[in-house]
Order: sequence, then C-alpha cells, then structure tokens
Amino acid sequence: MTRSSLSRYLPILDWGRRYDRATFTGDMVAAVIVTVMLIPQSLAYALLAGMPPEAGIYASIAPIVLYAIFGTSRALAVGPVAVVSLMTAAAVGNVADSGTAGYVVAALTLAFLSGVMLLALGVFRLGFLANFLSHPVIAGFITASGILIAASQLRHILGIDAQGHTLLELLSTLFANLGDTNPITLVIGVLATGFLFWVRRGLKPALRRLSLGPTLADIGAKTGPILAIVATTLAVWAFDLGARGVAIVGDVPQGLPPLTLPSFSPALVSDLLVPALLISIIGFVESISVAQTLAAKKRQRIDPDQELIGLGAANLGAAFTGGFPVTGGFSRSVVNSDAGAETPAAGAFTAVGLVLAALFLTPLIFFLPKATLAATIIVAVLSLVDFSVLKRAWAFSRADFAAVSVTIALTLLFGVEAGVTAGVVTSILVHLYKTSRPHMAVVGRVPGTEHFRNVRRHAVETQPHVLSLRVDESLYFPNARFLEDQLSAFAADKPDLTDVVLMFPAVNEIDLSALESLEAINTRLQDAGIRLHLSEVKGPVMDRLKRSHFLDALTGDIFLSQHDAVCALARPEQGTALSRPDQP
Amino acid sequence: MTRSSLSRYLPILDWGRRYDRATFTGDMVAAVIVTVMLIPQSLAYALLAGMPPEAGIYASIAPIVLYAIFGTSRALAVGPVAVVSLMTAAAVGNVADSGTAGYVVAALTLAFLSGVMLLALGVFRLGFLANFLSHPVIAGFITASGILIAASQLRHILGIDAQGHTLLELLSTLFANLGDTNPITLVIGVLATGFLFWVRRGLKPALRRLSLGPTLADIGAKTGPILAIVATTLAVWAFDLGARGVAIVGDVPQGLPPLTLPSFSPALVSDLLVPALLISIIGFVESISVAQTLAAKKRQRIDPDQELIGLGAANLGAAFTGGFPVTGGFSRSVVNSDAGAETPAAGAFTAVGLVLAALFLTPLIFFLPKATLAATIIVAVLSLVDFSVLKRAWAFSRADFAAVSVTIALTLLFGVEAGVTAGVVTSILVHLYKTSRPHMAVVGRVPGTEHFRNVRRHAVETQPHVLSLRVDESLYFPNARFLEDQLSAFAADKPDLTDVVLMFPAVNEIDLSALESLEAINTRLQDAGIRLHLSEVKGPVMDRLKRSHFLDALTGDIFLSQHDAVCALARPEQGTALSRPDQP
Repeated sequence: MTRSSLSRYLPILDWGRRYDRATFTGDMVAAVIVTVMLIPQSLAYALLAGMPPEAGIYASIAPIVLYAIFGTSRALAVGPVAVVSLMTAAAVGNVADSGTAGYVVAALTLAFLSGVMLLALGVFRLGFLANFLSHPVIAGFITASGILIAASQLRHILGIDAQGHTLLELLSTLFANLGDTNPITLVIGVLATGFLFWVRRGLKPALRRLSLGPTLADIGAKTGPILAIVATTLAVWAFDLGARGVAIVGDVPQGLPPLTLPSFSPALVSDLLVPALLISIIGFVESISVAQTLAAKKRQRIDPDQELIGLGAANLGAAFTGGFPVTGGFSRSVVNSDAGAETPAAGAFTAVGLVLAALFLTPLIFFLPKATLAATIIVAVLSLVDFSVLKRAWAFSRADFAAVSVTIALTLLFGVEAGVTAGVVTSILVHLYKTSRPHMAVVGRVPGTEHFRNVRRHAVETQPHVLSLRVDESLYFPNARFLEDQLSAFAADKPDLTDVVLMFPAVNEIDLSALESLEAINTRLQDAGIRLHLSEVKGPVMDRLKRSHFLDALTGDIFLSQHDAVCALARPEQGTALSRPDQP
Repeated sequence: MTRSSLSRYLPILDWGRRYDRATFTGDMVAAVIVTVMLIPQSLAYALLAGMPPEAGIYASIAPIVLYAIFGTSRALAVGPVAVVSLMTAAAVGNVADSGTAGYVVAALTLAFLSGVMLLALGVFRLGFLANFLSHPVIAGFITASGILIAASQLRHILGIDAQGHTLLELLSTLFANLGDTNPITLVIGVLATGFLFWVRRGLKPALRRLSLGPTLADIGAKTGPILAIVATTLAVWAFDLGARGVAIVGDVPQGLPPLTLPSFSPALVSDLLVPALLISIIGFVESISVAQTLAAKKRQRIDPDQELIGLGAANLGAAFTGGFPVTGGFSRSVVNSDAGAETPAAGAFTAVGLVLAALFLTPLIFFLPKATLAATIIVAVLSLVDFSVLKRAWAFSRADFAAVSVTIALTLLFGVEAGVTAGVVTSILVHLYKTSRPHMAVVGRVPGTEHFRNVRRHAVETQPHVLSLRVDESLYFPNARFLEDQLSAFAADKPDLTDVVLMFPAVNEIDLSALESLEAINTRLQDAGIRLHLSEVKGPVMDRLKRSHFLDALTGDIFLSQHDAVCALARPEQGTALSRPDQP
C-alpha cells in the first residue's frame, strides 16, 4: 500500500505531518471550550437515551479520538446527539427496561451494530444509500423527533413518571400521572428552561454589550448551560432538595471509561438490526451535512465514504467503552470550528478534558437535578422544530409535501422507525409516479429556423405524415409502457401517418424495459405501416442501444438532429401545415 | 352523462351499433375454434389451480361476457391462464386444503378481491402502478413460473403425490414418493406429452403439406390437444384403466355455472389481500400486453384504465359463478384474432359454446386421465420458459441482469409472491442507484463554435476561473447530495475558481431535496468566494424554481445558453486554455 492510499484511509497521516505550534494553540483553545459545553450535553443525552449519566461522557471520549484518526472533517465533534439518543431509547426500550443491566448491554450492542454497518457502508462505498433520505423526509423527521424528545422530557420537569415512544403514549401517560407532580422539581425545571431560553436568545446580545467579540459572545452563550447546572446543583445541595422528592443524578462512578462488551445474542442482534441501520443512516446524514457545511467555509474536502469509516470506528469505540450510539453533532462542531479548531487533534484534546472530568468531576454532579438536564434537552431540541418546511414544500411541489407530511405524522403517531421508513417509501413512490407519466411534446419546426418547439405552445410547421415527439424524461420501467400507450394512441388517431420521429435530447438513460417497449413500438408501428426514427440520441444512450439488436430491427433511421430528420422525411409536394397553438 | 362518455365506460355501445352480418360471420367462426381449444385448456388450468375441473369452464363463461361488455380490446379472450392459476394455487393453498369446500370458497374470494382491486385501479386511473413491474422482472417471473408449473404437474404424469410452492419442496416430495409411480399413468402421461410436443412442432408443417393455408394450419395445431384428450379418454374407458390406478377426472356436474358467493371473513380477506394484489397486477400486465399487440396490427386503440375495469368485471363474474381468478390469455387471444374475431361478440359466442359444453359434454370427460391434462399444461408452459432474457439483460446492462436473476432465483426458491416482490424491489433500488451517481461532464467550448463538449473527450477552450458542469440527469433526492459532494470537491481543487456554471439541458425535474442542495451549494460557494450560475434551464424546471426563493439567493445569473454564460463571464485579458482530451 503506498503512502497516499494509506493516508486516504488514515487522514491523520496527512494533517499529522504538518502539525505545528499555531495549529496546536487553536486546537487547545477549542478543546477547552468544547469540553465545558460537552459535559452537561453528554449527561443530558445519556438521560434522553435512558442510559446512566456517565455513559454520556464515556460516549464522547473514545469516539472523538477514533473519529480524529479516521474522519476527514477537520472540525466535526462526535458524541451523543439528540435525535440518535431518542432513536436509541426507542430501539433499546423495545428490548429491555431502562435502568437494568440488559438495557446498557443492548445500547452497547446497538452502537456495535451501527459501527459495523457504517464501516461496511464505507468500505464497500455504499454511502449513496444515505441519499434515499430526501431533504423533506429529514426535515420532517427532525421536526417530529424534536417534538417527541421535548414531550419525553416533560416528565423530568414535572417529576413524574411517563413512558412511550409515540406522542400519544407520552402525553397520555403524562396526563394520567399529572397528580404526582413534584412542585419543587417543577420550579427548578421551569426556571432552568426559562434561563436556558434566555441564554439562547438574550445572553449573546448581553455579552456583545459587554464588548466581547461576536465569536466569543457566541461561545459564551453556548457554554451558558453550565451556569444552570452549577446553580441548580448548588440549590439542591444547600437545601437538601433530594430528600424532598427532587430527582437527582446521584452516584456516578469515578474513573476512566470501562472496557465493555456488546452482546452477540442472535435474538438481540436480530431485534436491533433494523434500528441500527436507521440510526446509522440518520446519524451519517446529520454528520455529513454538518461536516460539509464547516468544510466549505475553509474550502476543505470531505470524503463521504471515509466519513462512514470514521463514524463506524467512533461507534465501535462507544460500544467497547460503555457508551451508546454517537454521531457528529451540529452545535458542538460549530462551536469547535468557531473556537479555532484547526485539526482533528482538537477532538483528541477534548477527549483528554472529558477523561479528566470522568476522573475528578463526577462527585460534583451528585446533586445535579434531572430537571436541569431535561431543560437543557428541551431548549436544544425545540430549535430543531421547524414546521416551515411544510409551507415550503407545499409551495414547491405536492410530491415533496406528501413526503414531509407523511414523515411528520407517522413519526409522531407511530414512532421514529415507522416515520422515517414511511417517509423514504413515500419519496420513492412519489418519484416513480412522477416519472411514470413523463412530459412529452409533439414538436414542429419554428418557420425559417432549425429549432423545434411544442405545437401546443408555438406556431410551428408540421407535415401530416410525420409525427415528431420529444420525450422529456429518461426511459425506464415505470414509464416504458406509457410511451407505448401514447404512441399507440397517436398512431390510431392519425390515418396519414407514415413516419414517427422520437427526439431524445433529454433521455439520459434507457433500461431493458424501455428497450423492449421501443422494440414493441417499432414492431407495432411496422404492422401499421409506419416507420420509427430516433433523433438527438445522447452518446451514453447510443452506446447502450448499440449493445442490443434494436438498431438492426429499427424500421427507420437515427438522425443527429431533429432538423436532419425532418429534412430527410419531408415531402415537398405536400407542403407544410402551420399549427396554431392552443394556448397563446 | 353524455353518450360519448357513457361509451367510454361501456365500449359495447360503440362497436355494438355498427354490428353487421360480415362481422357476425367472422366472430362466429372464431368462437367455434376458440371453444374447441378452451375446453381442454380450462380443465387443465382448473387442475393447476387445485380447483374441480368444471370450475375451469365456469371461469371462462361469465368473465368472457363481462369483458366483452367493459373491455376495449376487440380480440382479447379472458379466462383461466397458467401463471394466474399457479398464483391462485399458491395463495389459496396457504389458507385451505385442495379438494375441500373451503378451498373453493377461498378461490372465489381471491377472484372477488382481485376484481374489486382491478376495478378500483381502473376507476381511480391507477393503471400506472403496473409499470412498477419492469420487463426483466416479468420475463424472469414468467420463466420461473413456467418451471414451477411444469414441476408441479409431474406428479400427475407419474401418478404420485407431491406438494409445495417452491421448486425445492416440489422436487423433494416428488423424489420421496417416486416409488409409488403408477406405470400406466406414466405411459399415458409420457405419450400425451410427446404427442402434444409433436403437435406444437410437427403438426403445423404437416397440415401445411396437406395444403392448408398458414392460418388454418396454425389453428389446427392449436386445437390439436383435443385429440389427445379424446384418445386417452377412450383408452381409459375401453381398458377400464381407472380401476388400475390411473387418476381420472370423474364426475363433473352437468349444468349452468352456479351462483356462488365469496367469503367476507375478515381473516380470510386479510390473508388474501397481498396475493390478490399481485395476481391483479400480474394478470393485468399479461393481458394488456396481449391486447396491445393484437390492437396494433389493426390500428385499434386500447385504454389501459378501461382494461382494468374490463378485467375487474371479469373477475367479479368469476367470483359469483363458481370460477377463480382470470385474465386475458395469450394463446387463446391470438387464435381468436387469427380466426377472424372482429368484435368482443366473438367472446360472447364462445361463452355460449362453453355453456353448451357445461350442459352436455361433462359426462364425456368422466374417463379423462389427469395425466393428459398435466401434459397439456406442461407443453403449454414450457414454451414460456426462456432463459435468453438472462443473456440479453447481461449484454445490455448489469442492473437489468440483477433484476431478472433475483426474480428467477427467488421465484424458484421461495415461490411466486416472494419472487415478484423481490424483483420489483430490486428494479427500484437499481434505478435509484443508477440515478444516484449521474453522469456529469466538465465542458468547454469547441473553438470557433457555440458548442460545448466534455473536456475529457474533446479539445475545447476553458478559462481557469470558470467551471462549466453539464448535469445529465434530473436532480432529485438520490443524487442531490452527490452534486454537493462533486461541487465541493471541484471547488476545493481549483484555487483560481470564481464562477461555476451548471448546465441543465437534460435536467427534467428538480425536487425539494435537489433545490435545498442547490441552495447549500450556492451558500458554500459563496462562503468560498465563488458565484453560481445556471444555463439552459428547461421551462418546467424554471417554473418550479420560480416558486422557491432560490433565484433570489442565487449569487450568479441564469443564462439562456451556455454560450451566453461563457461570453458574459469571459476575462479577455487572461486568454483561454485549450484542454487536451485524456482519451482521444
């Protein structure tokens, strides 16, 4: 293996050789800021995923380092994120009860499966599979997930019990237990939520008024949540609120991330296969869009297949060090990039910071109320909720609107897996439907030119014995028969017809179904005494046709341009008819 | 409702008014020939479907009449056909045992559901759904079904018991019971099969030598099977072979088709929904391709949605008169058309012939050996088996080869439903894969012209600050991100770049995902100080873009032609570089 092919799979060999003091400083500053931001975030997402709090920190350490070695983005920060944590809770909640050892093992197994799948997708260069998730489906899914996540955290704000993976389940159990609300928890939860909303909206302008630069003000606002953590933890400790029913984080083991093993039980693995695939693909899509946005600003290059390998390694790391499924997170990556991270080494330094936190800080969060973590999550995810995509899709096309509304409705009503699956299926069906009735135009010559236009839109010349039909779509199985139907109808309607010319400038592809339809058309027209010609066939399509026997059977000719075709087929003695457009 | 819109739904109003003596004669001759051919065929397909023999005749009577009223093909003959009968046996065999009353009711229910679905597809004009069955999938499915059908009939030739809906099940039970072979049955079966093969291959030339015209010779050969029926029935009767273990048809009720009711049991209906949908679609596809082939010869017109209504009515007829699922058959329709059928009235006359057969001929087939019917089926279906589609698909494209081979393998290994479903899914995935990496070409100007060609294929002029990229595919979700990746890579590689022009002459469609990708590209290029332009955007695509905010955000311009774009962006002081093609 040459050095360059090795550094394709190990990007660290590329940037590592050019590492210097300036890069180090930038990376170090970014790492300190990201560490401070990640501690509450990691604890909160562990809570969301139904995992013990320390798992959130563990899930940020090994994955960050492994991504730094294998990933191609310079600034991406990998760890637990909201949507993937929600999907983890939904998938693992189906096979084990939260709080049990089985739950933790199932989460490790989910991370392991997800890691293996991501690696396999990367090694076999199957990253294009992620493209089956259309933007409307992702937008709808993220919005619906944000609502589900916020609803799932209300129980911590109220201090009551509520379960479920659909909006209906969550709200109905919530209402049923509303009487058990703990007032002190509610006060803490509401205050923390209000404060965090203010941090998001008001702290940044406030910091700007204190004449901080925009980047510093932004970073200050992003690290604000640590204030809520410190204040509420101190309050619980000072007033012994834990004894008065406020749920607190409690004992968190002190020490390095443990070495853990996922389960290889076939029953568990088969239960988690589909969720693992969905988590892998959703996580990859979220991560790559963050990575590309950040890379574009610095004209850096992201290799999607290598990203899959980086994320796969990160998830395997999470599986063997007490974590749960991870991916590249939006807010942490933006903070990392804005704070000056130059290379993936910033991630490694962040990992060191988190190791220190795991070693020394965990006793300090004993009194941290879960309501504060829930507030952190709610404020973070409500920024994901954005129904404007519905309006945007409606204005742009009904097809996209169908995909986004199906995704939102099914995610809320039946959970994340049903929602994203239905969204993908809807997008595909809608696409097949749209291309199944391609736009076709009967064309005629604009008088005095070599241009051919739709007879229904322009005043053009045609001859009664020649039908020129422009096909505005690739020909493949969903529309192959449509072309047959259309041509049969045309041939039946025009008794004088002797020549049909199919104009193919926008036909990018012909598959075997379309080829057989063209052969059927050719034969049927021949039976009716009509010749079939083609014009303006693209190079790759022509190459494909040459590999079949169609060109031998074709009753007519292939013309380089429609103009050539019409000149060759003209019958001067008949003259030409000037069509009048139906629509001016 | 006006007369013309009424006659759209009732084509009989159209051809019925113009009916005269000449048409009557043609129809009558065709009806007699088709009746003689249909009697053995109907009995045989009933056997294949696991139904009592009379059901085959009943399934040919009401459906033919109803199709004559509602269908649009002049020559299509509707009744039991091989593939649909096999699918009926597979579907009904899963819910009831052959020979029981429950089996017959389930078959009626299947016909009823299929009829309702076909009608619904027709009324809601959803015939395009049949297009999801690509030609390679159909070809593979028919070939594999032919093998399954032939294998399923071997038990009648051998006179033993064998069950199963996959090749493995059929062959393993066949081998297990091979010791029970009845030698007389085997002799009858082999002789009948051999005779029928000779009828297919040798009788037509023999009749031609007797100076019959080609059409008559063809029809003679098609009605040949009746000879095998008569000869073997006489042999069984004369030598009392029934008593020596030869399975015979036995008592067949004499009389008109009975009035029957399908079951509306929710459990049964839900078990049969998916098979009914597959049978409907496969049956429709088979029928419409026959109808269109016959119609094209006479420049007649087939309305696919009305065909769905005709077939739906035919299946409802079968459900209420003791039949089972039916569709338009290839061989009987060709015979009908060749024998001179002019209108659907020929079908009605055939129905009268079959009613007479049901009333008076059934006692004559008491001694008919099942081995003869099995021979009829085997000879008919082996003509469907055609592996050349594999070779053809391999030569044409690997994608189509994948679809056809998956369909054949899964139909043989896991049965008809699994096979056709896997084939459809494979075709769709393969299409999405192909379009997910569209062909894109960096183009430059052919010196001295306004033409733009691929820089890798032609010696063309380019400027280092302008990148012109021609996209040869509609932009939609599977390839939206690919365009982003490609452009990010280009922008990262070209430090002097200030302008990117996307050439869209072959972009037939832009969906919301692609729009968001274009917006992301626009923003990212802007971050990198590069303007984005479009050229040669098609009318419908431009209309779509105008409904979004993309054009407001676009950093560059929209040019009518690529030539306009390059002229506007040219920097004369820099001169132009002449690329040398990598490939001559």
